[in-house]
Amino acid sequence: MSEKYLEDFAIGQTYGSGRLTVDRNRSKAFAAEFDPQPYHLDEAAARRSIFGELAVSGWYTAALTMRLLVDGELKPAGGIVGLGFEEFRWPRAVHPGDELRLESEILEVRPSQSRPNQGVIKVRTTTRNQNGEAVQVSVGNLLVPRRPESTGAGDKCQVLPARGRGLP
Amino acid sequence: MSEKYLEDFAIGQTYGSGRLTVDRNRSKAFAAEFDPQPYHLDEAAARRSIFGELAVSGWYTAALTMRLLVDGELKPAGGIVGLGFEEFRWPRAVHPGDELRLESEILEVRPSQSRPNQGVIKVRTTTRNQNGEAVQVSVGNLLVPRRPESTGAGDKCQVLPARGRGLP
Repeated sequence: MSEKYLEDFAIGQTYGSGRLTVDRNRSKAFAAEFDPQPYHLDEAAARRSIFGELAVSGWYTAALTMRLLVDGELKPAGGIVGLGFEEFRWPRAVHPGDELRLESEILEVRPSQSRPNQGVIKVRTTTRNQNGEAVQVSVGNLLVPRRPESTGAGDKCQVLPARGRGLP
Repeated sequence: MSEKYLEDFAIGQTYGSGRLTVDRNRSKAFAAEFDPQPYHLDEAAARRSIFGELAVSGWYTAALTMRLLVDGELKPAGGIVGLGFEEFRWPRAVHPGDELRLESEILEVRPSQSRPNQGVIKVRTTTRNQNGEAVQVSVGNLLVPRRPESTGAGDKCQVLPARGRGLP
């Protein structure tokens, strides 16, 4: 899978990922460092909590999603540089033993207004468990370089509508 | 700082946090596990990248922000249970040695329409570096229990307007 430039992305394209099983001890170690709340650390406490069983920190789900994304099919040239999200949800808890995979869909492709050699793609990434249930849904903007030979053509920058917020 | 119920939160309240210095080796270890991209792992590669110097993974910033939040002043009874975010941005890169702290502001307080003993608070949390610059801005919804003695009074549930999306 080769690295992709802005010109390689189009609305409606979908990208997949590998799969990854959530490990109980690693998820607890993550929680101990970053999200030390009883329902992420202790089975008995989790049973008495709103989750009813040990639930992985949402930030661990986010971190694992990033790992799947980096190793997955969507490979912007220059790396996955996220500017932020317009939507970010955890519709369902993740538990140790769950198997996660990603589905990403390109929602928008636009050149940068301020940086002629860059653009932004808007991507919806859904993290699903082994039952196909969505456990994390994000709609985010990634910074993507334009193909080097195309950046000299200033008029090309106006072919696509430039929508949304400006780049930093 | 005691644990807070829905009734203890009000629009405009602000909550702070402690401070935390970003460690170079721990941020690299995080990146190696979850976000293995050259500009998070290697100083020389980072200098050649869009960041110009070693930048911490945005997910490490998010994880450290969660740690500051868990240890901070905003303490919902039952823990910090995030449903998701309506906005989530990294306006500026974080670098090893940066010192982070949080500012949280309550934007909305509403009882749940479907769960009489719970409600939702909308919170803007800004993570700032040692220069006061925002490095992460999120607007998220947290699930918060109602004060036990108040949940029997069904009519109280209609005092506050119920806006926004439903609970899972």
